[in-house]
Amino acid sequence: MTPEEFRRYGHQIIDWIADYRSSLHTRPVMAQTKPGEVRSKIAANPPVDAEPFADVLKDLDEVVLPGLSLWQHPMFFGYFPANSSLASVLGDMLSTGLGVLGLAWQSSPALTEVEEVATDWLRQMLGLSDSWQGVIQDTASTSTLVALLSARERTSDYGLVRGGLQAEDRPLVVYVSAHSHSSVDKAALLAGFGRQNVRVVSHDANFGMCPESLDAAIRRDISEGRKPCAVVLTTGTTTTTAVDPLRKNIEAAKRHGLWVHVDSAMAGSAMILPECRWMWDGVEGADSIVVNPHKWMGAAFDCSVYYVKDAQHLVRVMSTNPSYLQTTADGQVKNYRDWGLPLGRRFRALKLWLLIREQGIAGLQKRLRRDLQNAQWLAAQIADEPSWKVLAPVQLQTLCVRHEPEGVTEEELDRHTLNWVNSLNQSGRTYLTPATLNGRWMVRVSIGAENTEQHHVEVLWQAMKEAASA
Amino acid sequence: MTPEEFRRYGHQIIDWIADYRSSLHTRPVMAQTKPGEVRSKIAANPPVDAEPFADVLKDLDEVVLPGLSLWQHPMFFGYFPANSSLASVLGDMLSTGLGVLGLAWQSSPALTEVEEVATDWLRQMLGLSDSWQGVIQDTASTSTLVALLSARERTSDYGLVRGGLQAEDRPLVVYVSAHSHSSVDKAALLAGFGRQNVRVVSHDANFGMCPESLDAAIRRDISEGRKPCAVVLTTGTTTTTAVDPLRKNIEAAKRHGLWVHVDSAMAGSAMILPECRWMWDGVEGADSIVVNPHKWMGAAFDCSVYYVKDAQHLVRVMSTNPSYLQTTADGQVKNYRDWGLPLGRRFRALKLWLLIREQGIAGLQKRLRRDLQNAQWLAAQIADEPSWKVLAPVQLQTLCVRHEPEGVTEEELDRHTLNWVNSLNQSGRTYLTPATLNGRWMVRVSIGAENTEQHHVEVLWQAMKEAASA
Repeated sequence: MTPEEFRRYGHQIIDWIADYRSSLHTRPVMAQTKPGEVRSKIAANPPVDAEPFADVLKDLDEVVLPGLSLWQHPMFFGYFPANSSLASVLGDMLSTGLGVLGLAWQSSPALTEVEEVATDWLRQMLGLSDSWQGVIQDTASTSTLVALLSARERTSDYGLVRGGLQAEDRPLVVYVSAHSHSSVDKAALLAGFGRQNVRVVSHDANFGMCPESLDAAIRRDISEGRKPCAVVLTTGTTTTTAVDPLRKNIEAAKRHGLWVHVDSAMAGSAMILPECRWMWDGVEGADSIVVNPHKWMGAAFDCSVYYVKDAQHLVRVMSTNPSYLQTTADGQVKNYRDWGLPLGRRFRALKLWLLIREQGIAGLQKRLRRDLQNAQWLAAQIADEPSWKVLAPVQLQTLCVRHEPEGVTEEELDRHTLNWVNSLNQSGRTYLTPATLNGRWMVRVSIGAENTEQHHVEVLWQAMKEAASA
Repeated sequence: MTPEEFRRYGHQIIDWIADYRSSLHTRPVMAQTKPGEVRSKIAANPPVDAEPFADVLKDLDEVVLPGLSLWQHPMFFGYFPANSSLASVLGDMLSTGLGVLGLAWQSSPALTEVEEVATDWLRQMLGLSDSWQGVIQDTASTSTLVALLSARERTSDYGLVRGGLQAEDRPLVVYVSAHSHSSVDKAALLAGFGRQNVRVVSHDANFGMCPESLDAAIRRDISEGRKPCAVVLTTGTTTTTAVDPLRKNIEAAKRHGLWVHVDSAMAGSAMILPECRWMWDGVEGADSIVVNPHKWMGAAFDCSVYYVKDAQHLVRVMSTNPSYLQTTADGQVKNYRDWGLPLGRRFRALKLWLLIREQGIAGLQKRLRRDLQNAQWLAAQIADEPSWKVLAPVQLQTLCVRHEPEGVTEEELDRHTLNWVNSLNQSGRTYLTPATLNGRWMVRVSIGAENTEQHHVEVLWQAMKEAASA
């Protein structure tokens, strides 16, 4: 494709996306396709000869579009919001169009330096001190894996250059909560700790980790000959957006020299609001933090920012230095390849940079406050209905709710919950995520799609009541 | 940003990229900025209020553009090509604009099913049997880490659900070559094996791993009480594009039950050419393969395809199943989150799908053959010049060359090599990557940027001669 063909088709793609974004509220939120249906519309074999680009565009409407669940839909209340704001989309498009690669600073200096600036801007917006340095990773799963690998190597005094984890005489232990994200358990297992060395610390009634339990668990492991290594604390858990009390848990962890990783993938965005900063009280004592601007804040996926105190340690764990990657600028610059797992890196900073500039801090704050208010509004409505319950504190923009008709057993209640939420999702009117809490199914309502206004939440509430009483 | 604003600015961005792509041959290939220069042009603090989008566009020209090294430049011969073909760019732009996320099949069915189709198309193009299943990862670094984690868990019989790698009674060992990519060593260390358990198997004069040495190394480890776990074989090494003989090395590995991972990040693209398939003789005996369509083939970065024989094993190692990720479609569909490290996934298949359709197999083959011919042309020129040497077989599109004036010591030769290549890079005329081979510096000429025609290689050769004799 020549640049001139690109210009022609590119304008068509831009129009197609603009039309898609401005009309998606008229479509079903959750895709209504059957398993295999999309695949069945595509040829089983690759084309030998070039196809006209118009055929590709046609398939966007006929094959792709019906197979999408619409995360940007104002009636999307599933998982957590993934607000691919249009200014950020343009930043990401630029990154792809530029086609440059960050193997080293020299291989495209702007890629590295705009990332330094954009992550530092975000640091300031979040109220973090300048002792933190940021780097963009793909997802919080990866950021947390990087954190646990860093912790492993600090506790083992860089065992990786000797016999690795398999040469440790005493098992290293990681501490989590039952409400830590599934990626935390995955990261601990992939890092080689083993499930027997992942301690699930008990939590309080609001699903926050108990510092006393953490302290006791660490002491028990030490007395039994194991080496406590790291604790993962969460601000904004996935099920209920619970907040592990940072200050006291960090005190307990630091008493025994543990690495503290703070998973603020979700609640991190709210730290641009001073009134939410209580959730981060004590965060400066941590070793690493992950914040996902690609969730609520509006950066196009993927953009997960990993903040670290001791960047030299990170580089020592992650660095490689083969001759073909050495450049004359080394020593004067950051080579971000040594700050994470992959060698090759996109120019991801553009999507964060453009988002912040096009919105300004004030614009982002305003939208987040709207969502917090919408969550409080819905919580108040639910409180007025005796057969509905809000099951966890609404501290952020997510509600855990259940419709509890009188006189049903717990098993019937589970069936009832899954029935109404699945039928509502399948209707295409909205998208909610069921999850279990204290062993029973409930429904998460995660407010905060960019186009969700209060009237959408009103429509949702009406639809929930209808579905539950159907 | 509203969809209508997006339409307006999006057209500007498309035009900007089209202009950039059609004019980049007039710019310096390697950025001529100093460390910190880009950063110094950007405000140190984030804006409180929204900035006009025109200011952002202005900074593209004044801040970003001068700070780019131009991977799409026809005079780019550095690293390996990263051909961000414009059809693929459009596919990636669509992915960003759609803003959907593949947490589960249900969270956007087309994202999963187009990925199934596109990776299967590529499988057919590469001549792989249908016993392979593909998934898109970000980079080969990640794919290789996934392979070594899979190997670790097969050898340890899923130790991750027990005491992890730290509970193994005998150390697990990984086998590589000195010419394996730096990411292989990194993956082995991050997976916890430890450098003492990474064996560097000797290679032949053409830099391919010796099967006899592999066999001997494995036997020695067994006899000394260790557990051989995995071998990484490379087709198309980074320094010289050498090919580890697959069939015999795989025989040696399989005799002892090792996991075989084939790193074809670079040479994999050439497997669409039947005349290059000798490099993969025996590949069907491997357990996993990585191929990077985002290199020479032309997919926009990031698009690394990981092929695996036993997908069930992969899922068992990588899967998580918290309640909030369960859907009614589970069991009937693929949930690609369980095929790699990150939970969230972009719609990356679009950039591969659009590339293949817009080019056709024939179009891709034609371009790759052109590059192979250009490499042979340059090799022939160099063979005619007594003071120049080609240092390794030119099997693909990369040449390892050195200018060797008479009567210089080896240390002087190193200085001479780095002098002329760095001055040539800094001139902006071209971009080459110096690297060491057998302990001495030489220069890699990696042909294959999408716009590089023979006349560009002629200009390069002239420039090299001038720089070396300056």
